[in-house]
Amino acid sequence: MIYSEATEVQLKAEFDVVNAHFETCKAQNLKLNMARGKPSKIQLDIAGGVLKTVLEADDCFVDGVDVRNYGELTGLKCAKEYWADVLGCKASHIFVGGVSSLNFMFDVISRAFSHGLLHSERPWCKEDVVKFLCPSPGYDRHFTVTQFFGAELIAVPMTAEGPDMDVVEDLVKDPQVKGIWCVPKYSNPDGIIYSQETVQRFANLKPAAPDFAIMWDNAYCVHEFEGDFVEFPDIISLCEKAGNPDMVYEFASTSKITLAGGGISAMATSEANIAYFTKLFSAQMISQDKVNQLRHVRFLKNKAHTLEIMKEHAKIMGPKFAVVAQYLDREIKPLGIANWNSPKGGYFVSFNAMPGTAKRALALCKEAGVEMTPAGATYPYGKDPLDSNIRIAPSLPPVEELEKAMDVFCTCIKLAALEKLLNV
Amino acid sequence: MIYSEATEVQLKAEFDVVNAHFETCKAQNLKLNMARGKPSKIQLDIAGGVLKTVLEADDCFVDGVDVRNYGELTGLKCAKEYWADVLGCKASHIFVGGVSSLNFMFDVISRAFSHGLLHSERPWCKEDVVKFLCPSPGYDRHFTVTQFFGAELIAVPMTAEGPDMDVVEDLVKDPQVKGIWCVPKYSNPDGIIYSQETVQRFANLKPAAPDFAIMWDNAYCVHEFEGDFVEFPDIISLCEKAGNPDMVYEFASTSKITLAGGGISAMATSEANIAYFTKLFSAQMISQDKVNQLRHVRFLKNKAHTLEIMKEHAKIMGPKFAVVAQYLDREIKPLGIANWNSPKGGYFVSFNAMPGTAKRALALCKEAGVEMTPAGATYPYGKDPLDSNIRIAPSLPPVEELEKAMDVFCTCIKLAALEKLLNV
Repeated sequence: MIYSEATEVQLKAEFDVVNAHFETCKAQNLKLNMARGKPSKIQLDIAGGVLKTVLEADDCFVDGVDVRNYGELTGLKCAKEYWADVLGCKASHIFVGGVSSLNFMFDVISRAFSHGLLHSERPWCKEDVVKFLCPSPGYDRHFTVTQFFGAELIAVPMTAEGPDMDVVEDLVKDPQVKGIWCVPKYSNPDGIIYSQETVQRFANLKPAAPDFAIMWDNAYCVHEFEGDFVEFPDIISLCEKAGNPDMVYEFASTSKITLAGGGISAMATSEANIAYFTKLFSAQMISQDKVNQLRHVRFLKNKAHTLEIMKEHAKIMGPKFAVVAQYLDREIKPLGIANWNSPKGGYFVSFNAMPGTAKRALALCKEAGVEMTPAGATYPYGKDPLDSNIRIAPSLPPVEELEKAMDVFCTCIKLAALEKLLNV
Repeated sequence: MIYSEATEVQLKAEFDVVNAHFETCKAQNLKLNMARGKPSKIQLDIAGGVLKTVLEADDCFVDGVDVRNYGELTGLKCAKEYWADVLGCKASHIFVGGVSSLNFMFDVISRAFSHGLLHSERPWCKEDVVKFLCPSPGYDRHFTVTQFFGAELIAVPMTAEGPDMDVVEDLVKDPQVKGIWCVPKYSNPDGIIYSQETVQRFANLKPAAPDFAIMWDNAYCVHEFEGDFVEFPDIISLCEKAGNPDMVYEFASTSKITLAGGGISAMATSEANIAYFTKLFSAQMISQDKVNQLRHVRFLKNKAHTLEIMKEHAKIMGPKFAVVAQYLDREIKPLGIANWNSPKGGYFVSFNAMPGTAKRALALCKEAGVEMTPAGATYPYGKDPLDSNIRIAPSLPPVEELEKAMDVFCTCIKLAALEKLLNV
């Protein structure tokens, strides 16, 4: 039954059926979580070996450095080489970070506000207005970082090829627009891989602001769960070739390769930016955790071996996304009330409910014991103008729990739509 | 020979002898480093066990938390309990940090400038002037943090009991004075333990600024290298009792207990401050490295066991400080040109050369291949008004190298003094 073509009588009958099932769901007293892109326990087990690569004093030396001592602010040479291999850039473009790439991104934005970036005329906190582009739906924690420092967030529509570059190219003519958040591969939450043209248009941008920053969060750069590894271009060299060498800051981490609570991160950017940030960061720390850097290099070895490990993750993640697709195809597709993406990597399914029902649907989910990312979270200020987009994060629950959660989810999506159509 | 009582002829003769020895020193082509408080390799070996406490998936669970996954921004419960035991405060007063306590301090000051502290009327960046008190000689990296954000640094004299509290109490009447840097036990570089009266006067401070911050860096809280452990008061409860519960931020780390390049840190402060900073820090990270927190708790266990480990460090550090004392007593004391402290813990000897000769002496050291902390570094803006204080950091070189380095150092101290006295 396509809801929009159904009679009121038919919808009322459907409402009774769905509502009865909702009550059954509630009666199960579930406590399930699809709110965050957290790896599951068995995924964390894949990287068990990372805990055992640096055990003895003799294991602690590499390239003439005792990793247990102070020093090497920008990271171990071998760790830079590892990240350069994964990201396809040069080791001289890498600054190795701590456990959190988010914290790295935060520090870059924080320094932009307190001190300015390499080509800033003044610290951003001295600007009357700082605007930041937020392709939406996008990652709430990105948006929060720039909002935290008082930037005005501007939503940019997403297309199937990435952010709408016509809009981006137009907006960057405003010198108050200082940057943009990007997740170029398996975007959060849409799972879109930016097309080659989109990436090239980013590299070719001619922003009015001399210190415009592309925050290129390559969080899911090797995170296929279906099919072969998809190559991605090196944004650092593309920007360099386009005459914008210092415009991009790329980030990555092993949070979803090894351990979400104990991995390593990296920033890739021009050598000039590395030099500038080395100076800035030297005010705040002597070194990152080099023992953990070495643990990771010894375990992950290189890009090829990392991709092998990612295949193990895919074996766990693939079936979970299949469950999501299966429920949505069976329960929601015939109703004509929603659409969603079918990514082959990343951590999310981006679901667009009937406009005006996302908040209500997730309130119903909560009532039935299923926690989801709050509706609206994927838009600047947490406000989805259509009240439609919902981020489904199926990684954490085991398959049997996920099936229950998806049953609840589909029920709530239907119920919210029926309530709206029937003005209940 | 006391230089000030010597005749010019005597001084010239001495100069020739010392200068000849200086040339001998140079001919050795030494490359020795006494610049930083870096632990030596054998100290790092003491904590070898910390690398082996979390090896299997089953080792990764504590208090119902899988330490490998995201979450627990403020730290593991067991890690809070560990730090509370060491610092003598409550676990609810602890926020567990990453590898660098310096980075933690930086983040607090950074947030004070960008957003303000709990009782700030406005972010510090919106104040016309922010002044920060710097007991001097002190730790250059502390001073750098506040200078980095544009604070005006005000030197406060040190006494044998800690910062001159008459001066501090007077200066805090100025509402532009927003805080003070303190190293309460084995102060850097003087090695002074703040007296009970000093600590109490800190707790009782009545600053004009409602958001005055005592940055209480308890870096050497368990770091005796001679004699028994010296108890220290809990500044958090003292401030609470004095009606200033939110005025103090205490810091500590395991950098000089386990691994300088892979330890954990902590901030201890009031519950209200913990709540405030939890909110602020949630914009920048999901969690710190909890695997490393658990590694440390399993290895260090508690304060009593930590003190046992520190006795192992003392066995290595004690003889090195004895070498420093021996050289200074034999070579410098009879000349009446300098004085120095004789601490029983910490990482430094604070040496006061003949005024006006510190920079020259260290330039000579460098010429002879011995690197020291730059003269002046222990004062705000790197400017020692007397050009006298030098921080000796004997921890890194093995004893035989340290003896060579101290020979060079004493020679250069003498030579710089003789040059000045003879107007060479």
